Amino acid sequence: MKIAFQGELGAFSQQAILQLLGPRAEPAPYQRFDEVFAALRAEKVSAAVLPIENTLHGSVHENYDLLLRYDFEITAETSVRIVHNLIAPPGVSFERVRKVYSHPVALNQCLDFFRRHKRIERMTFYDTAGSVKMIMKDRPADAAAIASELAAKIYGGRILRREIEDDRQNFTRFFLLEPAGSKPRSPRGAAQNPWKTSLVFSTKNIPGALFRALSALALRDLNLVKIESRPLRGKPWEYLFYLDLLGRSNDPVVQKALGHLEELADFLRVLGTYRSA
Amino acid sequence: MKIAFQGELGAFSQQAILQLLGPRAEPAPYQRFDEVFAALRAEKVSAAVLPIENTLHGSVHENYDLLLRYDFEITAETSVRIVHNLIAPPGVSFERVRKVYSHPVALNQCLDFFRRHKRIERMTFYDTAGSVKMIMKDRPADAAAIASELAAKIYGGRILRREIEDDRQNFTRFFLLEPAGSKPRSPRGAAQNPWKTSLVFSTKNIPGALFRALSALALRDLNLVKIESRPLRGKPWEYLFYLDLLGRSNDPVVQKALGHLEELADFLRVLGTYRSA
Repeated sequence: MKIAFQGELGAFSQQAILQLLGPRAEPAPYQRFDEVFAALRAEKVSAAVLPIENTLHGSVHENYDLLLRYDFEITAETSVRIVHNLIAPPGVSFERVRKVYSHPVALNQCLDFFRRHKRIERMTFYDTAGSVKMIMKDRPADAAAIASELAAKIYGGRILRREIEDDRQNFTRFFLLEPAGSKPRSPRGAAQNPWKTSLVFSTKNIPGALFRALSALALRDLNLVKIESRPLRGKPWEYLFYLDLLGRSNDPVVQKALGHLEELADFLRVLGTYRSA
Repeated sequence: MKIAFQGELGAFSQQAILQLLGPRAEPAPYQRFDEVFAALRAEKVSAAVLPIENTLHGSVHENYDLLLRYDFEITAETSVRIVHNLIAPPGVSFERVRKVYSHPVALNQCLDFFRRHKRIERMTFYDTAGSVKMIMKDRPADAAAIASELAAKIYGGRILRREIEDDRQNFTRFFLLEPAGSKPRSPRGAAQNPWKTSLVFSTKNIPGALFRALSALALRDLNLVKIESRPLRGKPWEYLFYLDLLGRSNDPVVQKALGHLEELADFLRVLGTYRSA
């Protein structure tokens, strides 16, 4: 099973693929998110894995836009803790490290580490996993990289320091996408977890409209676990809402709530129903 | 008036300072967002400017967290269109450019440009404005940078190509922060704009709770222009909500709505009231 993701081999998205589908899924890297979607539509891959929100950086609106532009199904979700490790080629000791390569976002998430080790210079690179690939190929004698444990494993680097990130509460949530009509999957350990349904709808003229729309859920005692508004481009006072609720889309109560919501909203699309992570 | 911001001189945050306070405000660059807040608390600066959301990348949760940890007032907002320009030292023509330096996020937002010009290599740098500073200092004969027009102006670079970004709908919204109790400001051109109030509240057990909380606004015909939920760390089923409504915090109707919301929420804080951008 070939799975598209954005980034280099060893990226956190590949960790998400592992968590979602196990080690037999074959990761297929693409440079851009829209290429990931295009690959799935062209059936070059059988699924795609996509970051959708991060605890520090918020929702990836670009990917919500792509979810709406294409007609795929979310069949599972997972959450990856973003752990940054200092990785060097075997033979390079921590004491010899003078330069550390990584993506600037990763470098910026390890500032306490760099303050404690002032001899070490930060060097920017286009990708976290790519920086490990580079140091393993070029083998500079005084350089290391910051990336995931998976990147160290894939490129044969040694982890010199683990968990050097400033904030341990850094998680990214990923969706597994499959062609429309695909059945939900149960990633390992999630088989007993409650169901979640993700949907997008639009309304004019909130809060009257949002309040009424939410009544379709609240008056049926359905639990909301995410809501986010987003202004519609070029349409002042019209909004998209991303919403996750607890429940499976074919539960009778959820069915009724969705029918009711459809009456109240200008537009409604169910993006998928899946076991919560 | 000294204004703290995160980044290098010439960053988009400095453009926001210009839009908010005009050319006489003196920008004071800091490396991290928490340093920006600390500088304002220590009165090293009289205000701070902070990105809070982007149309492609969503809300900057890290900055919402800092808004809650500190006790400052949002006194104005502005929106900056993220325009990427190809900038080189005077004398370097477009035909000679072989390498382009910038932050990877900026490089990734100009992929169509790089596809059209395959001779040009992408080089990552820690910051967009910093990449202009670097090429103006080192003067490589075949290199350019991608950054704002302001960065070109500050460091004396020449713009070889304007607006090379893939997506023109890339805007970042910024807040102006001042000590608690500061009065709202009217940035140029915003004096007649409607008032907005930003608040944060928490509830247990949505949607019952969210639905009821929104009734405090909806039943008073107050317009919501943003809502976003965020799970509270370590407290399953409790949520923070970021909410922007149209209206000034001392309007009698808004006052009543806030009083009512306070009854319904576990926690409520008004972050500021200001003219919408």
